[in-house]
Amino acid sequence: MTTTVIVGGVAGGMSTAARLRRRDEDMEIIVLEASGYVSFANCGLPYHVSGVIPDRASLLLQTPESLGARFNLDVRVNTRATGIDRENKTVTTDTGDVISYDHLVLSPGASPIIPPIPGIERALHLRTIEDVDDVIAALDADVGTVAIIGGGFIGLELAENMRHRGLEVTVIERAPQILTPLDEEMAAIVEKQLTDNGVQVITGGDTSTIGEDTLTLSDGRVISADVVVASIGVRPTSELAADAGLAIGERGGIKVDDQQRTSDPAIFAVGDAAEKADAISGEDTLIPLAQTANRHGRLVADIITGRDVRRTSTLGTAIVGLFGLAAGSVGWNERRARAAGRNLRVIHVHPADHAGYYPGAETLHLKLVVDADTDAILGAQAVGGAGVDKRIDVIATAMRGGLTATDLADLELAYAPQFGSAKDPINFLGFVNDNMIGGERTVQWHELEDARAAGWKLIDVRTPGEHEESTIPGALNIPVDDLRQRAGELEDAKALVFCRVGLRGHVAASLLGNLGIEAANLDGGFMTWEYTQKARG
Amino acid sequence: MTTTVIVGGVAGGMSTAARLRRRDEDMEIIVLEASGYVSFANCGLPYHVSGVIPDRASLLLQTPESLGARFNLDVRVNTRATGIDRENKTVTTDTGDVISYDHLVLSPGASPIIPPIPGIERALHLRTIEDVDDVIAALDADVGTVAIIGGGFIGLELAENMRHRGLEVTVIERAPQILTPLDEEMAAIVEKQLTDNGVQVITGGDTSTIGEDTLTLSDGRVISADVVVASIGVRPTSELAADAGLAIGERGGIKVDDQQRTSDPAIFAVGDAAEKADAISGEDTLIPLAQTANRHGRLVADIITGRDVRRTSTLGTAIVGLFGLAAGSVGWNERRARAAGRNLRVIHVHPADHAGYYPGAETLHLKLVVDADTDAILGAQAVGGAGVDKRIDVIATAMRGGLTATDLADLELAYAPQFGSAKDPINFLGFVNDNMIGGERTVQWHELEDARAAGWKLIDVRTPGEHEESTIPGALNIPVDDLRQRAGELEDAKALVFCRVGLRGHVAASLLGNLGIEAANLDGGFMTWEYTQKARG
Repeated sequence: MTTTVIVGGVAGGMSTAARLRRRDEDMEIIVLEASGYVSFANCGLPYHVSGVIPDRASLLLQTPESLGARFNLDVRVNTRATGIDRENKTVTTDTGDVISYDHLVLSPGASPIIPPIPGIERALHLRTIEDVDDVIAALDADVGTVAIIGGGFIGLELAENMRHRGLEVTVIERAPQILTPLDEEMAAIVEKQLTDNGVQVITGGDTSTIGEDTLTLSDGRVISADVVVASIGVRPTSELAADAGLAIGERGGIKVDDQQRTSDPAIFAVGDAAEKADAISGEDTLIPLAQTANRHGRLVADIITGRDVRRTSTLGTAIVGLFGLAAGSVGWNERRARAAGRNLRVIHVHPADHAGYYPGAETLHLKLVVDADTDAILGAQAVGGAGVDKRIDVIATAMRGGLTATDLADLELAYAPQFGSAKDPINFLGFVNDNMIGGERTVQWHELEDARAAGWKLIDVRTPGEHEESTIPGALNIPVDDLRQRAGELEDAKALVFCRVGLRGHVAASLLGNLGIEAANLDGGFMTWEYTQKARG
Repeated sequence: MTTTVIVGGVAGGMSTAARLRRRDEDMEIIVLEASGYVSFANCGLPYHVSGVIPDRASLLLQTPESLGARFNLDVRVNTRATGIDRENKTVTTDTGDVISYDHLVLSPGASPIIPPIPGIERALHLRTIEDVDDVIAALDADVGTVAIIGGGFIGLELAENMRHRGLEVTVIERAPQILTPLDEEMAAIVEKQLTDNGVQVITGGDTSTIGEDTLTLSDGRVISADVVVASIGVRPTSELAADAGLAIGERGGIKVDDQQRTSDPAIFAVGDAAEKADAISGEDTLIPLAQTANRHGRLVADIITGRDVRRTSTLGTAIVGLFGLAAGSVGWNERRARAAGRNLRVIHVHPADHAGYYPGAETLHLKLVVDADTDAILGAQAVGGAGVDKRIDVIATAMRGGLTATDLADLELAYAPQFGSAKDPINFLGFVNDNMIGGERTVQWHELEDARAAGWKLIDVRTPGEHEESTIPGALNIPVDDLRQRAGELEDAKALVFCRVGLRGHVAASLLGNLGIEAANLDGGFMTWEYTQKARG
């Protein structure tokens, strides 16, 4: 009989344990969990704060007892592994045990980053069941204002749920934008949703001190904050591994090979504490997502029980829902792709999530980042009221299958008017990409001023009514349907056309090009431009 | 200047026309449309019958005038092409014109199949704007009962919308099941939804005569029917092509190559009238879907204007929404794959569409059909209240990208508890497939009786409470959590285990296998079995 000891009893650790038992009835399987709970729904914690998930017990997917009965596991909660003796293959615990192992699986997760701010000890976190109990206890006291430091996924989910409790909420994000997996013009749409729902959002906000019921920024602004939550991000809990002399990566995660093996072949690591392989570059990265943890847990169990299987690299697909708006991303954003020096095609579209003639259609904001040299899809972002998860999942699947951006034009997606369009938003991305390959020139919102400086003349091809309501300053209005007649006005110009979302702009740019007039289309149209203006105040 | 004549001004034809103009400002483009309308939303017609889509004008996406202004097209409605002189390259019309072409694009669509039933001339159809006007006029008279012949997508959408109008509705389907793109156990879930919402569904129903206000079946049953709609399916409108001597395929569609070129190189065909290449077998097939028509229209325009591009084959992804339930499919169903002689792995799962701990989760019924020799995904079906379109789209994309069934386990899909699960239903399909590759044996619902005859003992591993409420007759109840202790009872047996959906069955089968007991898991569990029982009365 062999023994496997697993450090950490949530996503990765418990996936390993259950799979091990299904493949080996005789193995001794011991799970050490530092908190009082195993297999809890950490992604559900923000929603319990507001009572959207009313029943605390529903967050506890398994108990040590239920796991013991079904999988014959020795699950020890409130037990922290304190040391690894690799030579003798033992783990010591803070409960005084010394446990021998044949295989050791490290799945200790990640810990909240605690910035060195005076008063930070008052800040709460949200990572464990104990944390959510603390947050709820704090809010149940006489509380009116909350400050959340950090505008990432969990911080923003918390902001929403605090609003559901009727609190005044301020989110303070140090970066120039919230939700850094998105590019700024996409994050701007989410920021608007938050402010429309009464959340005060401060970007570029640097917290200097936390007082008794306030929080002070380095620019002197004082934020009322009966409760402070720090949600700045996490760092891999890799101390145990480091102390045991296991290799640690540049980003602080436990280094593993493509079988999740650490530098000690008897020791594996999975989940937020372990490094991943980035799907685009192949480089080591940190992607703290539950799904990857589960998947790698299963993989490690297979390897320990004798299968020769390998992990795939990681795309980092993620999504967040905020006041009914969803924002998702997969792969690289434009910022990262430009930093990596890639030659890019960037595409923004704003179609309806389903056929416009069927009730309830909502605008879907989609962005695709394409390697212009290879036509490979590098990443995508989506923001909207409906259909965001579907389009992100389709693109994640396309990326995994090695489909090119042009291939998106040919994807056959399920169409009935409640669910999509005969030309799905995904197909549109492929069409625009194909047009660009065919030579159609586009200008990004952040290139607009440079283009004007270089002599491009800005033409608003929307209707006079749309133009009068609001336009880009200095644009000349020539509606697309009049352009064939009025093209003479542009004879010697370089015409940078735009419409509301880019579609009429494409028609206009094609027409001008066919008439021999140099033309480009403002990618994403007035809508993308307008969001960036709002974001920049 | 060259001239392109396009026969048919809806999806495929109008996509060709608009794309041609965007690529060539000088071409003369003439569109001949037999009906009074172009570019209308044919997939929306059933929803206008009930007023779900209240505004008739919203179905008319473009008019001849709007297209003329934007794309400088010569659009002639109420104009039927009546002959093609290939030698002189002319088309004649029922309005007496003879039009010369350099290229001709045939996109005449499909026509309702009209069965030779006495009285059929009273039956209405639903294919054009004129048809929907006729249906609404008929219902606006004093009508209480409607019979719909045909239980396919459009017949069932009509049934729902007739119910919304408060009518008594009977659907008569000749096949043993409705919705033949699905397999019978999946169609059974949809049938229950229809009957739960007051639609009378008759399968295996053969209409022998249609009377003044009734419809009589060959078994003598008389159905009250103030209005009769025939929605039996469509056949390609290929007469014009056939009369001109163009090659017609076995299934009656216009034969085309992978550039949509007919047997005459100056003539192309797209849309419902043209044959497609089946994505699984490569064989010619007929798949009348708007998306394919649009896509092929764009392709033909590119080819006519000098690009060397090729079509992809067709998966036939489709979906229908019925009283809030969605049913979708992609690729081949089990019936077709078995008929083709493939060695199959078939997988049913019934997970929640999103995390069970977040409010509003609904059961998603998913089926995957896998080539057991190659691990290729042959097709999938999904039925449920939410998340159906997403899962079908992901599998369609995976199929297009050449991902195997095992690869589904590794797909990184967007997870937050409102949108999915850390182990998405799609991942589950991959896990089950992986387990089967690893040797786990499953039995399909339709193999159950044979298995029992071969000596397999049926074990219900659900809780006693679940077992007592309803079970498969003759099953012995040993709850999964007691199985480790009670395995001795099964020492010499071949154990066919089942639970509610298959998950605990997998745990039980794994445990028994590890203990040296021959075991198999009933695929899809009690839930799949129960639906088939209901469907078979």
